[in-house]
Amino acid sequence: MNTFGQSFRLSILGESHGSCVGILLDGVPAGLFLEPSDFAADMERRKGGSAPGTTPRREDDAALIQTGILDGRTTGAPLLILFANRNTDSGAYEALRETPRPGHADWVALKKYGGFADMRGSGHFSGRLTAGLVAAGVVAKKLLSPVRVEARLLEVGGKTDMERAIQEAMAAGDSVGGIVECRVQGLPTGLGEPFFDSVESLLAHGAFSIPAIKGIEFGGGFGACRLRGSQVNDPILDMDGRTATNHAGGVNGGITNGNELVFRVGVKPTSSIRAAQTTLDLRTEAPAELKVEGRHDACIALRVPVVLEAMTAAVLVDLMMREGRLPRVLAI
Amino acid sequence: MNTFGQSFRLSILGESHGSCVGILLDGVPAGLFLEPSDFAADMERRKGGSAPGTTPRREDDAALIQTGILDGRTTGAPLLILFANRNTDSGAYEALRETPRPGHADWVALKKYGGFADMRGSGHFSGRLTAGLVAAGVVAKKLLSPVRVEARLLEVGGKTDMERAIQEAMAAGDSVGGIVECRVQGLPTGLGEPFFDSVESLLAHGAFSIPAIKGIEFGGGFGACRLRGSQVNDPILDMDGRTATNHAGGVNGGITNGNELVFRVGVKPTSSIRAAQTTLDLRTEAPAELKVEGRHDACIALRVPVVLEAMTAAVLVDLMMREGRLPRVLAI
Amino acid sequence: MNTFGQSFRLSILGESHGSCVGILLDGVPAGLFLEPSDFAADMERRKGGSAPGTTPRREDDAALIQTGILDGRTTGAPLLILFANRNTDSGAYEALRETPRPGHADWVALKKYGGFADMRGSGHFSGRLTAGLVAAGVVAKKLLSPVRVEARLLEVGGKTDMERAIQEAMAAGDSVGGIVECRVQGLPTGLGEPFFDSVESLLAHGAFSIPAIKGIEFGGGFGACRLRGSQVNDPILDMDGRTATNHAGGVNGGITNGNELVFRVGVKPTSSIRAAQTTLDLRTEAPAELKVEGRHDACIALRVPVVLEAMTAAVLVDLMMREGRLPRVLAI
Amino acid sequence: MNTFGQSFRLSILGESHGSCVGILLDGVPAGLFLEPSDFAADMERRKGGSAPGTTPRREDDAALIQTGILDGRTTGAPLLILFANRNTDSGAYEALRETPRPGHADWVALKKYGGFADMRGSGHFSGRLTAGLVAAGVVAKKLLSPVRVEARLLEVGGKTDMERAIQEAMAAGDSVGGIVECRVQGLPTGLGEPFFDSVESLLAHGAFSIPAIKGIEFGGGFGACRLRGSQVNDPILDMDGRTATNHAGGVNGGITNGNELVFRVGVKPTSSIRAAQTTLDLRTEAPAELKVEGRHDACIALRVPVVLEAMTAAVLVDLMMREGRLPRVLAI
Repeated sequence: MNTFGQSFRLSILGESHGSCVGILLDGVPAGLFLEPSDFAADMERRKGGSAPGTTPRREDDAALIQTGILDGRTTGAPLLILFANRNTDSGAYEALRETPRPGHADWVALKKYGGFADMRGSGHFSGRLTAGLVAAGVVAKKLLSPVRVEARLLEVGGKTDMERAIQEAMAAGDSVGGIVECRVQGLPTGLGEPFFDSVESLLAHGAFSIPAIKGIEFGGGFGACRLRGSQVNDPILDMDGRTATNHAGGVNGGITNGNELVFRVGVKPTSSIRAAQTTLDLRTEAPAELKVEGRHDACIALRVPVVLEAMTAAVLVDLMMREGRLPRVLAI
Repeated sequence: MNTFGQSFRLSILGESHGSCVGILLDGVPAGLFLEPSDFAADMERRKGGSAPGTTPRREDDAALIQTGILDGRTTGAPLLILFANRNTDSGAYEALRETPRPGHADWVALKKYGGFADMRGSGHFSGRLTAGLVAAGVVAKKLLSPVRVEARLLEVGGKTDMERAIQEAMAAGDSVGGIVECRVQGLPTGLGEPFFDSVESLLAHGAFSIPAIKGIEFGGGFGACRLRGSQVNDPILDMDGRTATNHAGGVNGGITNGNELVFRVGVKPTSSIRAAQTTLDLRTEAPAELKVEGRHDACIALRVPVVLEAMTAAVLVDLMMREGRLPRVLAI
Repeated sequence: MNTFGQSFRLSILGESHGSCVGILLDGVPAGLFLEPSDFAADMERRKGGSAPGTTPRREDDAALIQTGILDGRTTGAPLLILFANRNTDSGAYEALRETPRPGHADWVALKKYGGFADMRGSGHFSGRLTAGLVAAGVVAKKLLSPVRVEARLLEVGGKTDMERAIQEAMAAGDSVGGIVECRVQGLPTGLGEPFFDSVESLLAHGAFSIPAIKGIEFGGGFGACRLRGSQVNDPILDMDGRTATNHAGGVNGGITNGNELVFRVGVKPTSSIRAAQTTLDLRTEAPAELKVEGRHDACIALRVPVVLEAMTAAVLVDLMMREGRLPRVLAI
Repeated sequence: MNTFGQSFRLSILGESHGSCVGILLDGVPAGLFLEPSDFAADMERRKGGSAPGTTPRREDDAALIQTGILDGRTTGAPLLILFANRNTDSGAYEALRETPRPGHADWVALKKYGGFADMRGSGHFSGRLTAGLVAAGVVAKKLLSPVRVEARLLEVGGKTDMERAIQEAMAAGDSVGGIVECRVQGLPTGLGEPFFDSVESLLAHGAFSIPAIKGIEFGGGFGACRLRGSQVNDPILDMDGRTATNHAGGVNGGITNGNELVFRVGVKPTSSIRAAQTTLDLRTEAPAELKVEGRHDACIALRVPVVLEAMTAAVLVDLMMREGRLPRVLAI
């Protein structure tokens, strides 16, 4: 449901056009220095930069740490971090109850919640929810340090000249997808719990929670599955388990092997586009033409790297805590 | 860990060269007809057929239903299903403690379990463990009926002439990977729990538990992430939510939309190969040449379809039970 | 940790002298009518009445429903309900870091969280946290209707003349414990999941989360354990399973039997008392005399009934949802 | 359901008159010395001694360690431990489908599982299932060492002359209940996770899984709830947190305080008695007289101490593993 993790738990909350979005973090060790300004850099990254292709909606996105902190340090009690929603414009969404957007969650939200779902700005399905994830990631990355988690956009619309791909799509009232890669350096050997809590299982579970992600592959991924064993087996070089190549992406048998953890996710094109599409008018039950107005990213993948880092870091902190590899109280 | 699922729970157990492998199933509704012969067809499929490329190891693989059944029906108590290990030859494995196989779990098993792991036939990391999954799948597919779950091998070694690709690899003492696709027809709309238990998250979590899987993609997958929104948004056609195309693979916003559920997994080449490889000799800490003897599949992907069906069915039964869509007692 | 329940989940948050306390509820069906005024009656009961023996601290305790609601109905997304802390006076607590109160959580909080715990007003260990539970109970009791959950105080300080027992204790600068009984009418037969999720296991798990509870017994309880089988076996009277007596408290084999569910909890005397006690001075490591000043209940048991109802209702809703007995969308 | 614990997980299985009962243990650290003879002493204690009052049914109760072990040590993979059922006599039970025993689980089993439950020897509800718990306890107590968990019977039928109370009840074709106390010495300070996973919550959850338990109280328990704060607050004596008295039973605020952990459970009289009782005949829907034949304990409480030790040890190991206080690999 809306909670993830066993020893380090994220509970996500809020909706796009309600009063706030946020995250409740449980299992945060006591003694971690934390202040609202710690969140600023990643929240800024989440906006997708000043690049074209991101929505003109602007929140100041100040992290409001409501609970679990005293004198600038965590207390061991749950951390509630909220982000106020201020800059909302719900007018454009009412129509979506009648003409659900192709490719979007409108239809399933209407069906699953019997018409009671908050459809404004996609409600609880909005990409706005990822603000809470990013906040969790800030905490998780602090806890993981010196392990480093870094994600970046590899390509957009199938091209590495990303800016141009986005501008062309925008000019056509269209959107583009992208591929994001995440790398983690410095992980201990042995993370991951057979059989069902492999590090790949948990990372994939987390990654597919991020809206718009439709694929994930580790190391050589699908490409390596088209090769032979002799081409993808990574020779072990030393007693730290370092390998000459890294087709495994740092994971064997579902367990980290001490090499860099590498995986990629595919992010689909934003489903809300200005170009005309066909949908169903739920009142007349007849086909209807839809042009989605309002503020939308032409390329949601621009925002994904920092969110993917957050989910990755949260999964890894959880695993490390489950395995007794992170302290419950931080030394001063 | 070794348990998966919330309302329909799989607990996997056993090791390749111990006395047995098996599965403990909790949450099975009472009243389901079940007998050992129900498992025969899928256990046979798990052997990968008479095709070349599968290990010559032969188990009769009769399902031993130890608990949870009375007069041919489930009682509502946990089902313990075991498969005896008979045809084991551990001699070839002792050396792996000293020269871990590149690409395999040997190294991480040694590290994670401090030398106490059972390395014979890869122990708890063996593909033999999937026998228990397949058994769980037989039960899950019965419970899902008339929903149908079907997986098949799409390509091997990057080619659709699969038999030839395997034979060429075998001739070279090598192995090949493959791509397997799973399709589910007849699912209700609305399965999947925001935010973290999306149907994609849960299916991916399950799929990456299957040994050798390195990637998963839904619907159009990575390919669709290289296109534009206008190309991949699926127009809604009718009040059942049927869409003209299915780039979403039957899932929007992490929730089933009533269309066919479609996803693919990438299976890496078997890491145990006869061809010479370089590894580390853990005694001398010097490089060593390794040729893996013993019985190994040249293409483990041949066995994956029935295992992927099993994990998929288990995830879907669990979701349907969590959402109150399957009865706890079956009507006669 | 701070989350409880599987299908209907409570995540508790906040600390006594921070900005707020509250609860995050996940799994609430869509379509439930809910407004801030629904919480007023139970929040008033939580104050323990105008009776003597409750702390003079007064909050207005208005429920702030932050997320998960639209147009007065739940949307299916998580409900975040906060209560602002206004009337706090932290001055009296700083000393407790050095002279922990006997019987209180001060010592363990200091140890467990390495000195970083928020000790003001007992922080996350404060009875103030039960405001969130009561809010969860309001929602749960609405969902359970027409099943009725009712708890009441049976005795205080071992006496049924409760008011007098409290006044005598207060006059002595002392406190008293009490016994609270909870009864649930209208439950279906068959709630509870063998082996470990018996309805008694889950209710006890929930009840012992409530601060100050030191015992629980079902039906005839400890008294019945001093009798013979012929005295406590409840004869079955009719095809609804109604029994002539109810020594079982409505539970056999961990499963509801269709009769009234009855259990009692023991609430210890408030540990904060004005009378002089001996403790340890953590600076000097020598014994010290402690008189706890500040606002404290002389009889915390006065506040327990509504909190116990809340935990009970939450457990029962969770079980009913797990077993598919409550809809995920409410009919209009 | 039938699984308990987060990091150290017990999955219980089997039924009284099926082929076996047993336990699947997940999360057992690698390297623990374990052999079948380790289980003999506790399995013998589980039989209730040679005292009168225990059933004449005799199993040899040899622990069959099926998986998770190699060369006498645990491997880190799940441990499956089975006990064969040999000495079964199902004839006496068929009638219980028509005349459910008052006080027993017959009625709820019939209702919950729609007539498909295995009623022979009470099936999955049988006290026979506790064999698996005792096995789990043997492993857990080894892991906890040098922490010691010891339970003993305090009274039977309300009397401390226990043997006589049992003999009188048996002579009357009746049964008696009892009170069992458990004490744990050597626990670290700080075990227990606020808010919902207090050590009392988890121990009570586990204890109420044991058949026939109807009450639990910690430290001074219900008696202390009839006293004043000045009488039950335990003065802190030294920097280890040792207290002059132990009314708290070693737990404050749900967290162990470093003193002896003490709690008691109430065990109801065995519900199967030879003396005539009134029940309902489900065929005629009319009252019927029932005399339960077959082998039954006159005092099930005789068997409870070793089972309570087992559940207690399992809960404590789980908590210690969750909190990183037990290693995942044992040093040699």
